[in-house]
Amino acid sequence: MDGPTTGGPTVPRATVVLRTPLPFDAVTLDPGSFLGRWQSLNRDATLPHVLRQLEDAGTIENFRRLVVPSEAPHRGFNFVDSDVYKTLEALAWEAGRLPADQPWEGVTRELVDLLTAAQRDDGYLHTLYSGDEVFADLRWGHELYVLGHLVQAAVARTRTTGRTDLLDVARRFADLAVARFGEGGQDGYCGHPEVETALVELYRLTGERSYLDLARRQVDLRGSGVLGSGPFPPAYHQDHLPVREVTEVAGHAVRQAYLAAGVADVVAETGDPDLLAYLLRLWDSAQGTSTYVTGGTGSRHKDEAFGDPYELPPDRAYAETCAAIATFQWAWRMLLLTGEGRFADEMERTLYNAIPGSTSVDGTGFLYANPLQVRTGHDGSSEFAPAERLPWFACACCPPNLARLVASLQGYVATRDENGVQLHLYADADVAVGSGVLRVRTEYPWDGRVVVDAGPDGLTEDLALRIPAWADAAAVRLVVDGTVTDVVVERGYARVAGPVRRVELELPMPVVAVAAHPRVDAVRGCVALRRGPVVYCVEQAGLPSGVVLEDLALVPGSPLTAAPPVAGVDALVTVEAVAVHRPATGGPLYRAASAGVVGTASPAPATGRVTLRAVPYHRWGSRGPGAMRVWLPVAEHP
Amino acid sequence: MDGPTTGGPTVPRATVVLRTPLPFDAVTLDPGSFLGRWQSLNRDATLPHVLRQLEDAGTIENFRRLVVPSEAPHRGFNFVDSDVYKTLEALAWEAGRLPADQPWEGVTRELVDLLTAAQRDDGYLHTLYSGDEVFADLRWGHELYVLGHLVQAAVARTRTTGRTDLLDVARRFADLAVARFGEGGQDGYCGHPEVETALVELYRLTGERSYLDLARRQVDLRGSGVLGSGPFPPAYHQDHLPVREVTEVAGHAVRQAYLAAGVADVVAETGDPDLLAYLLRLWDSAQGTSTYVTGGTGSRHKDEAFGDPYELPPDRAYAETCAAIATFQWAWRMLLLTGEGRFADEMERTLYNAIPGSTSVDGTGFLYANPLQVRTGHDGSSEFAPAERLPWFACACCPPNLARLVASLQGYVATRDENGVQLHLYADADVAVGSGVLRVRTEYPWDGRVVVDAGPDGLTEDLALRIPAWADAAAVRLVVDGTVTDVVVERGYARVAGPVRRVELELPMPVVAVAAHPRVDAVRGCVALRRGPVVYCVEQAGLPSGVVLEDLALVPGSPLTAAPPVAGVDALVTVEAVAVHRPATGGPLYRAASAGVVGTASPAPATGRVTLRAVPYHRWGSRGPGAMRVWLPVAEHP
Repeated sequence: MDGPTTGGPTVPRATVVLRTPLPFDAVTLDPGSFLGRWQSLNRDATLPHVLRQLEDAGTIENFRRLVVPSEAPHRGFNFVDSDVYKTLEALAWEAGRLPADQPWEGVTRELVDLLTAAQRDDGYLHTLYSGDEVFADLRWGHELYVLGHLVQAAVARTRTTGRTDLLDVARRFADLAVARFGEGGQDGYCGHPEVETALVELYRLTGERSYLDLARRQVDLRGSGVLGSGPFPPAYHQDHLPVREVTEVAGHAVRQAYLAAGVADVVAETGDPDLLAYLLRLWDSAQGTSTYVTGGTGSRHKDEAFGDPYELPPDRAYAETCAAIATFQWAWRMLLLTGEGRFADEMERTLYNAIPGSTSVDGTGFLYANPLQVRTGHDGSSEFAPAERLPWFACACCPPNLARLVASLQGYVATRDENGVQLHLYADADVAVGSGVLRVRTEYPWDGRVVVDAGPDGLTEDLALRIPAWADAAAVRLVVDGTVTDVVVERGYARVAGPVRRVELELPMPVVAVAAHPRVDAVRGCVALRRGPVVYCVEQAGLPSGVVLEDLALVPGSPLTAAPPVAGVDALVTVEAVAVHRPATGGPLYRAASAGVVGTASPAPATGRVTLRAVPYHRWGSRGPGAMRVWLPVAEHP
Repeated sequence: MDGPTTGGPTVPRATVVLRTPLPFDAVTLDPGSFLGRWQSLNRDATLPHVLRQLEDAGTIENFRRLVVPSEAPHRGFNFVDSDVYKTLEALAWEAGRLPADQPWEGVTRELVDLLTAAQRDDGYLHTLYSGDEVFADLRWGHELYVLGHLVQAAVARTRTTGRTDLLDVARRFADLAVARFGEGGQDGYCGHPEVETALVELYRLTGERSYLDLARRQVDLRGSGVLGSGPFPPAYHQDHLPVREVTEVAGHAVRQAYLAAGVADVVAETGDPDLLAYLLRLWDSAQGTSTYVTGGTGSRHKDEAFGDPYELPPDRAYAETCAAIATFQWAWRMLLLTGEGRFADEMERTLYNAIPGSTSVDGTGFLYANPLQVRTGHDGSSEFAPAERLPWFACACCPPNLARLVASLQGYVATRDENGVQLHLYADADVAVGSGVLRVRTEYPWDGRVVVDAGPDGLTEDLALRIPAWADAAAVRLVVDGTVTDVVVERGYARVAGPVRRVELELPMPVVAVAAHPRVDAVRGCVALRRGPVVYCVEQAGLPSGVVLEDLALVPGSPLTAAPPVAGVDALVTVEAVAVHRPATGGPLYRAASAGVVGTASPAPATGRVTLRAVPYHRWGSRGPGAMRVWLPVAEHP
């Protein structure tokens, strides 16, 4: 092992990247900040809950069966081992986040001992497959996928605790994969990308080049069709085209984004220009045609797929939690590669909308799919479109994925380059930058004022502050050491030359009506309300009695204002808007609006106006199940 | 056997129904009429194609395996036997339609001999299951489902040819089902309804009451949960609630409509008022919240389900062909029960839109799902959302279902009651009504003029003519024996008292802009174009070069006119409309339309106007794959 052991999830070795992550312990989020509170909830509620569920669902027991002969059947999908690994990764980041307070070390060691005992002599470790089944079904077997998550857990544990017990397990399995699928071995790759990014990180930690080589080989081979055909189309497995020929996001959204993250890691270590071009094309495709205003991706329930360009229905939005997490991870790697603020913008969008919306206020209820609309009369019996957040899922990939991301959030706040430090995510935090500590003070995302105090000695280097694309650059205010300074935004950042002691940034946060591209048919005539990075929604809960959510339309020209908190909804700022109420329960589904000429139906008569209180999308459903919508119709003839 | 042997698909015995079908040979469709041409295409192209595909897919071979020991595996789903049965039913209706010309009798006999040889001594007949597997999985086994289709084929063959060879096979299997699941037997029903309607028809043909009793018993038991839980939710199998407690359509659309058709048959023979109330509630639910403007139902790809009320996305419309056929069959039974024109209206809507759209102009390409929009850039690789019609499917339920419906279409044209004759579907046809022949002359659906000539002796009974709900009743013109007559519409019909010699009906057919209920979010701001019963669509094919379909919006107030045929599209009448062209390729997916106030984004600049030629929806794709849409945006600021 010759790599750094103090890093977070991503520690590039090569000099390809334009930005370098800070050490994992460099940033401390204030426990009262949005992100800090989320981390506390994750530690105090989500992680204990996840560990309990892993026992109850038999996911940990699956490993015990390998150690102590048992008649009990394997439980869960063939990728269920990864739920344990993602949880171990979360526990490891927790250990690094609060190194003085390690309540999970005992649990972790027990699990590591169990994995060590369960592992075969040749390094193979999977709770379902044995004998001829091993690596027999690359398309659906998920064996390299679970290896990837095992590696990520092991890397995290080593980096935050220095312990190599789990790393030994992971390397034995990874070495087996190298022997089997490495150069000169079988031409194979996994039906579910994920091992690519993990192998690169294992290389970064250990310096063992064969891991990077295997990752690159898997990327190069992908799309050659070796997975064969099955119940899902080739794009589902990211096997429809060689990576270098792909021009659009396609197929299963999580697989697509995990693959892209892995490719970005390969680029970060190899500088491959063709692969970088692929990533940029793919990013533009995702952002330009296939991402919800919340940052969610993968609109289709069927095959958990992206769907066609501009196919973004709010009601049937699948927008799997894991897809948003995968987008975050991909965006982070693009940020490191390019230093461009648009990638941090997307991290922020997912972080305040698509991702937190998947977790209940108490941290123990989860959404797998994250719709942008729930209809009155919604049949919430499906696990994939439930009426409320659920404690667990038959396919429980999302909760432990959330846990590992949230436990490592501080790792994504800032980076550095040869000129200085870049702040990407604004949060109340202390950021150690070598020479000293930057005290970042803000009520973000509820308030756009950010004060960075570098202390009396100041920061000798440059400080780059992200100016989000959602902010009106002309209205941004920047005060450097007491002097109002012109804001020059370059690739998404305002750069303050050091030395500097105190920077005040004001990002104005008016409530904005957001319109979608005209090809997004599903939200024609609607706007979404956004304030700063936070997207809002209106719910049936809170409406006057007798008013059905679907009967409301915003009044054009009426004010959109920030408003105080709402009982039962954990958010500092809500939004007020005025809507006209046009009751339309029942009546014919279709009617002739005009004959012989293009006309439109007159709207139902208005019975009055209603002041709506919109709440952050990420807190929808906090007041119980019921109708919800992000996209609000704008009345045509109010 | 004591039932009539000259009937069509539905021959009620009891006097519950208010309308009685005519004998199957009473109506002869003119070969040049829309429906007559469809029947010819079905006979000349679709049926030979289907027979070939059943061989190529191994569906017929599955039966041979039961007779001659073979190592060849069973091929296809566990309900694939029904494809053979539906084809046999189609062949039987053909035999009754053109009794002097029976090219299929040899093929039919071969198949019947094969089934006879394949049937077990106890009557069981299924190509996949044997031993302990028999009736072991009611939820997914489809055994009673395939029995239902076998019975329907046998009833058709007996009614049109008098032959009982297939009926013997069907009764042996049905008797086994009665013994096993009848009164005092196992409480069981099939996960896919269909046997209910078949058993009632078998009772009607044979007079054997136990078949009706089993059908009623299955309806009564349904929803008691005996199917248990599986990968699909209970509503998928119509097992979520006892039938009498159901208030809304739910679950798998085909199963829902087949069940309703079966319940309607039970009501027709028992008069059960609670079940009739269920049917009327269900109908209102389907028609009021969950049916496409084409008559398609089942909007979700996931679970082929209805989805929530008003969830009717045009692009992801699943709208399975079989669901439209099932709606047609359900509507027909409701028409017989109630005599209300709204049910015939729905038969007509499916017959000119959802159903024919599923078949290519040459009769050998099919759609399983029937979207109302295909996007530019559509990934057409899915069998369930292909870029063009396909020759066959892994789940090939639709093509033979189409074949049996089309071969029996003349059976749905007219009925009688004690007062006289009712005309439901307008088509150029001769209708034998006992005393004589009604010569119906019309260019329907392209022209709304219908002339009924009862000959010099005239019709002594009353003649009821359906006045479709799409027609402006005030503008309908009725001339009875040369005298212009007031049109009084009662329950959907204008009744002309006999005796009468000649009736001229004029249903004006302006091009109408149809608007959807405001809760159908997916088509907000759009209209669909309809002329008479025919819904139109606009396709990329035929647009000027450089104009992308998605960049067009109709100009409010501009004329909608009927227009002549379009090359490559088999339709007598097309529709012209004027659209504004606003190119919007690329650009951001979301943008702030306004800050602090409700505003909407300005549309992209217009580059000019385009005259669109809309073609009947049912002929979309005739000019090759490409973008298509039924719902057209209306420009806001043209």
